[in-house]
Amino acid sequence: MATKFVSEKNLKFLLYDVFNIESLTQYPYFKQHNRKMFDMVLDAALKIGQDLLRPILEDMDKIPPVLSDGVVKVHKDVRKIMKECGEGGWIAATFPEENGGEQLPITISNCCYFIMAAANYSAYAYPLLTTGAANLIISFGNKDQIKTYLPNMIKGKWQGTMALTEPQAGSSLSDIATSAEPTEEGYYKIKGQKIFISAGDHDGVKNVVHLMLARIDGAPAGVKGISLFVVPKKRPDKKGKLVSNDVTVSQIYHKLGYKGTPIIELSMGEKDDCRGYLIGEPHKGLFYMFQMMNEARVGVGLGAAAVASAAYYASLDYSLSRPQGRKISEKDPSRPQIPIIEHADVKRMLLFQRAVVDGSLSLLLQCSLYADLEKLSDGEEKEKYALLLDILTPIAKSYPSEMGIHSVSQGLQCLGGYGYCEDFPLEQYYRDIRINPIHEGTTGIQGIDLLGRKVMMKNGQAFILFLEEVKKTITGAAAIPELKRYARELFDVLEILVEVTDSLKGVAITKRPEVFLADATLYLELFSIMTIAWQWLLQAIHVQKALEGELSQKETNFYQGKRYVFQYFFAYELSKIEGLARRLKDSNPFTVDMKKEYFSD
Amino acid sequence: MATKFVSEKNLKFLLYDVFNIESLTQYPYFKQHNRKMFDMVLDAALKIGQDLLRPILEDMDKIPPVLSDGVVKVHKDVRKIMKECGEGGWIAATFPEENGGEQLPITISNCCYFIMAAANYSAYAYPLLTTGAANLIISFGNKDQIKTYLPNMIKGKWQGTMALTEPQAGSSLSDIATSAEPTEEGYYKIKGQKIFISAGDHDGVKNVVHLMLARIDGAPAGVKGISLFVVPKKRPDKKGKLVSNDVTVSQIYHKLGYKGTPIIELSMGEKDDCRGYLIGEPHKGLFYMFQMMNEARVGVGLGAAAVASAAYYASLDYSLSRPQGRKISEKDPSRPQIPIIEHADVKRMLLFQRAVVDGSLSLLLQCSLYADLEKLSDGEEKEKYALLLDILTPIAKSYPSEMGIHSVSQGLQCLGGYGYCEDFPLEQYYRDIRINPIHEGTTGIQGIDLLGRKVMMKNGQAFILFLEEVKKTITGAAAIPELKRYARELFDVLEILVEVTDSLKGVAITKRPEVFLADATLYLELFSIMTIAWQWLLQAIHVQKALEGELSQKETNFYQGKRYVFQYFFAYELSKIEGLARRLKDSNPFTVDMKKEYFSD
Repeated sequence: MATKFVSEKNLKFLLYDVFNIESLTQYPYFKQHNRKMFDMVLDAALKIGQDLLRPILEDMDKIPPVLSDGVVKVHKDVRKIMKECGEGGWIAATFPEENGGEQLPITISNCCYFIMAAANYSAYAYPLLTTGAANLIISFGNKDQIKTYLPNMIKGKWQGTMALTEPQAGSSLSDIATSAEPTEEGYYKIKGQKIFISAGDHDGVKNVVHLMLARIDGAPAGVKGISLFVVPKKRPDKKGKLVSNDVTVSQIYHKLGYKGTPIIELSMGEKDDCRGYLIGEPHKGLFYMFQMMNEARVGVGLGAAAVASAAYYASLDYSLSRPQGRKISEKDPSRPQIPIIEHADVKRMLLFQRAVVDGSLSLLLQCSLYADLEKLSDGEEKEKYALLLDILTPIAKSYPSEMGIHSVSQGLQCLGGYGYCEDFPLEQYYRDIRINPIHEGTTGIQGIDLLGRKVMMKNGQAFILFLEEVKKTITGAAAIPELKRYARELFDVLEILVEVTDSLKGVAITKRPEVFLADATLYLELFSIMTIAWQWLLQAIHVQKALEGELSQKETNFYQGKRYVFQYFFAYELSKIEGLARRLKDSNPFTVDMKKEYFSD
Repeated sequence: MATKFVSEKNLKFLLYDVFNIESLTQYPYFKQHNRKMFDMVLDAALKIGQDLLRPILEDMDKIPPVLSDGVVKVHKDVRKIMKECGEGGWIAATFPEENGGEQLPITISNCCYFIMAAANYSAYAYPLLTTGAANLIISFGNKDQIKTYLPNMIKGKWQGTMALTEPQAGSSLSDIATSAEPTEEGYYKIKGQKIFISAGDHDGVKNVVHLMLARIDGAPAGVKGISLFVVPKKRPDKKGKLVSNDVTVSQIYHKLGYKGTPIIELSMGEKDDCRGYLIGEPHKGLFYMFQMMNEARVGVGLGAAAVASAAYYASLDYSLSRPQGRKISEKDPSRPQIPIIEHADVKRMLLFQRAVVDGSLSLLLQCSLYADLEKLSDGEEKEKYALLLDILTPIAKSYPSEMGIHSVSQGLQCLGGYGYCEDFPLEQYYRDIRINPIHEGTTGIQGIDLLGRKVMMKNGQAFILFLEEVKKTITGAAAIPELKRYARELFDVLEILVEVTDSLKGVAITKRPEVFLADATLYLELFSIMTIAWQWLLQAIHVQKALEGELSQKETNFYQGKRYVFQYFFAYELSKIEGLARRLKDSNPFTVDMKKEYFSD
């Protein structure tokens, strides 16, 4: 029996029932697609997950990449993975046909990434990072750049990366110091150091293409002086032959998890011969990079939800088969033990996991759909979807990451002592997923992004649009007798969110910005719980509809399961809102006032 | 500079100010001690921690024990650690002088264990387990057994273990199947398998003494038929020479963390020559074992708080020295960056850690004090302390374990990407502490123990005594103007706890026991938060007193720090109570009703 790591049924429920993804095929851009093709794509992704990625999950962890003689050696199958993802069209899945892509909806493509990440998160990083980098070249590069880099990247022959972080500039991108000196030949001479670059170099590809932030000599200080360059590991010479571009690997990091993907430190221009090619206009690098970063943030959320999904199915499998103990009301020791899934506390841990996994996935597909709709529409409509995606991105990144950790931890807990041992994959998932609240902007950064920027921007326009979307779902649910009560609950919570937001806006006006943003992480948490509850109510509407129709036993089980998980979320998770709101409405700023000297003993 | 892993100042504040531990020296049993001696003991523990244990923290993790030719090889310093802990009197610290002990208060001895576990949790397990096993022999063994095993155990020459778990009997001890066949020579022939035995065998000692649960042939089924045996790895023959006792190591577990301590699988009686010596009376094994288990549970809590303490100081150190970003109100990129501790969100993460660490430690010392007072008193008084210790043990075990994980995780988060790398100890702490909610009874088991047994036993007597203790603190705090508000808050929460408890008692009467205990883990969480808030209010009383006196700058910093952390706990943690209470008062039992078939897709 194949190891289960995702629910195909659930993916299809979300795609076709909840988000009616078929309707996208009415747009000319997607006219060559239909549901049957989407199903085939999903099947193909499942097959890659099962046959190519999942079998080497433990191997990639046990034999992590090594740096040897300046070369980063990765698992031997990485080459095969990049090749299959290239030839199978996965890297360019969403790209326009004119750029060699499949022109698939982002929503479908993200479902596939979810499947692959659930099979093996580290393996999935290689093609995903390449997609992001290639997409940036398509969006902002010139024709020459597209011609030079794109074909090999989308075929999986060349790796793409995003190279932002430097030793002194992690969360503080305005401190980026890598320099770019203009030359008369049109290229720039790059000098500097980049750290924490995922898949920043490896022997599974023939070349690596870094999308790198650097500062042109004489550029303004801060983020307004950052430009975007393509800096290949090897550059094509005049004859098109690849020659070294003076990019050296100076270190490989030894990490807690996510070990299959090398994270490395790069040094550029040690021989004064590193060439960078400007993308777009000077000093607009951060603006361009944010396209990739926003995609990457949704990608990190997808990855977290995926790892949590795999952990859920591993713990479910164990819980169904491990006999231990008896029902509390039937303690007769002469009777056989029962599978632990019969214990309420184990069921609670499983319900919790599914509430997190399915709730996160729903939000991530919701965001993907907004991304598709933004692409397909114009004017005000386009702006609307862009804003919705903007405000939801910090949540789509951080909720699955933060709650995914708890989810995997509960999965591990289901296995007791065995969960702590390498005999089961839970301990690896537990290590792997701990990266997610860190990379592509920590949770703290996401909180400040949400409250300090997204909620406030354009006079709160994104926030208003978000509230309207939620209210639409509430109205829909209120019309269904079984859901009326939950619609009301969500409405109450929505009001709390509005109150808290208004109260914080007041703080923004009357107090220092430090005080306003001091609890941004808590605000993010409150906002996230509300958002996931919205996604659960949305699912519940479609569950209720389905339960009223004719169903097979298997389908009944699925929808009944959904119903319980939905109820679980409202009872156990949504109830956290009031405690958070209470703190957020209390403007005593002690995390600001606390002096650093007070910590030391 | 030595790496800081505990606050000596805080330990002394708790010992002398909050718990007035000096008053114990008025009892005849402790009359040979005084504060100066206690201080010397603490200093000695700190020295062992710094010089012997902390330096090999990473080494013990990187080079875990291996099983080779039937021998478990551990870090070479384990021998030295056991020797020093033996010769230094640490293993027998609390034992009566007549048994070769130091007759130290448990409270002092637990402080020392806390220090050593903060230095190196895996290293501390070896002597601690030996103490527990030796204590069981003193309490329930006969003179011969004491004479045979005790001297070598307390000198650190022989390792002690507790051997309960079997493949089919983890949380369900009633299913223990290891058999004990009586012989005419007085000993029993032991046959069976034990799994997950910490320090169950290793080459750092000359012998291992297992305190093992087994079932005498013909014993009643279930827990009423379990007896306790001492089963040495090597038994002394008639001439006192050690000969093999047919206990074999069949497996060593490869674990997520806590790697310095081997956890192994044992097989007894493969050659039909494993002898076990009955401790106490037949069929009372579980009752005896519970003494050790309760000590071990407090020990697990102490270990978790200790690891979280070490993680706190590691993340504090980084936060004080790592420059990154600027104040939100002073974004000028030409100005130097500030240490990250200046950011409110980093301060929040540090405050959270200290709230957990100091709050947990306070409760653990409170429990230790009850254990001392139980030992020193008689009759009703003794019963009172025993009951208080009983009801608080599941909390002392699980709160530091569960919240310790979050605490270490926040510590790791302070370091961003570096927290995920092996260059800093955070990732190890994160792996190490994940064992704590599992071993010595999972959190789920602790919840059922608290609600199903401890709160209900003797007509709720333990619960009533606990409420009285908390009310005493509330009354004390209410008399201090600065604390009045917090006293009121705690009182309100106490009322919520009583309401929830009453409501659950109602469920116990009207519904199935499954429903009554379905949310025992949530009840444990609510109870724990309230309990830690009580400990914080207790500390706050003494902080307030201290702040009214003459203080050095360093002392002012300490007490001001405490004041902020106390406020943090009430604002950020205590506010979780109402959400939990709401769920606990809702008796919709969906974690009971949810069918296992509903989980599968």
